[in-house]
Amino acid sequence: MSLVLDPAAQDLLFREARTANAFTDEPVTDEQVQAIYDLVKYGPTAFNQSPLRITLVRSPEARERLVQHMSEGNQPKTAAAPLVAILSADIEFHDELPYLLPHFPQAKDLFFAERPSREGPAVLNAALQAAYFIVGVRAAGLAAGPMTGYDAAGIQKEFLDDDHLPLMVVNIGRPAEDAWFPRGPRLEFDQVVTTV
Amino acid sequence: MSLVLDPAAQDLLFREARTANAFTDEPVTDEQVQAIYDLVKYGPTAFNQSPLRITLVRSPEARERLVQHMSEGNQPKTAAAPLVAILSADIEFHDELPYLLPHFPQAKDLFFAERPSREGPAVLNAALQAAYFIVGVRAAGLAAGPMTGYDAAGIQKEFLDDDHLPLMVVNIGRPAEDAWFPRGPRLEFDQVVTTV
Repeated sequence: MSLVLDPAAQDLLFREARTANAFTDEPVTDEQVQAIYDLVKYGPTAFNQSPLRITLVRSPEARERLVQHMSEGNQPKTAAAPLVAILSADIEFHDELPYLLPHFPQAKDLFFAERPSREGPAVLNAALQAAYFIVGVRAAGLAAGPMTGYDAAGIQKEFLDDDHLPLMVVNIGRPAEDAWFPRGPRLEFDQVVTTV
Repeated sequence: MSLVLDPAAQDLLFREARTANAFTDEPVTDEQVQAIYDLVKYGPTAFNQSPLRITLVRSPEARERLVQHMSEGNQPKTAAAPLVAILSADIEFHDELPYLLPHFPQAKDLFFAERPSREGPAVLNAALQAAYFIVGVRAAGLAAGPMTGYDAAGIQKEFLDDDHLPLMVVNIGRPAEDAWFPRGPRLEFDQVVTTV
């Protein structure tokens, strides 16, 4: 075996973990979200820029507003999930760089002074962190249901601001029975990997 | 403890894993890369679109060409790493959708017929897969050194084509002694997570 990670962890995070479309009623606590964050915050980003922001939609009123912006197929599961999180990329991440990158604080002005120079890195690195977050949800024994089928401008206007771009909405909870479709095929190694 | 993942796996993947800047001479084999891929290919993407492509730079001649396109600070470590991979997003991922999404093959034409409608999803979902790949490298007991400091257009022209956007270059190997700087600070939970 070429992997060091033990098989139970492989199953928990990748092989048996699945995108859930239905959940039990068991709540997802703030303590669980804190534990997930305290694990996945260590995942690497360029210049440690850490642009991911997370909006937990907990109040029934906010949930209702969010559901209105989801695509029709995503509305029922977003309405029913124990917890829903909006993941966004903070375009103003550079404000935190002097703290995040203490040995190179001039990176803030050298590379990220202009907004267009921040948009691409913010989305790329927040997407990396979104993937770490999905892995973290699974590490907590929960299932994630990430979705991009929504009115992004509507979600941004309703829950975020001009400086935060929505990346995805994630349903979180303990999967119900029949929570997923059969797993889709994956590309073969040779379709993905080339050697030069 | 709110996490189910065992502490050794938490350490291997997140808490003790670090971005490496120096590696031992031990080679990274094709079998290891295959094992990494066979684990992380299960990470979720929207519509199972799986747009990540991986170019392993193995020949000395190709390595030399790649190093020329890296930023000055990244050149020595890219020249010395046991294995270097170029991760890219395939804008033509929709060609595989009828295979990847057999229960909804019309997604290809319904959502992704026009190239501009594919670029954002390709980058976002390939970035998720790049993060899974970094986690997978760690699951193999290796260290990753992801870098975005390079001439992207040069790398695209030299190693890819118009349909593949470079996302990052990743050095891979067993970390040498003193392979990393002290870990940078992370944002506190309350700086990242808000509740509505």
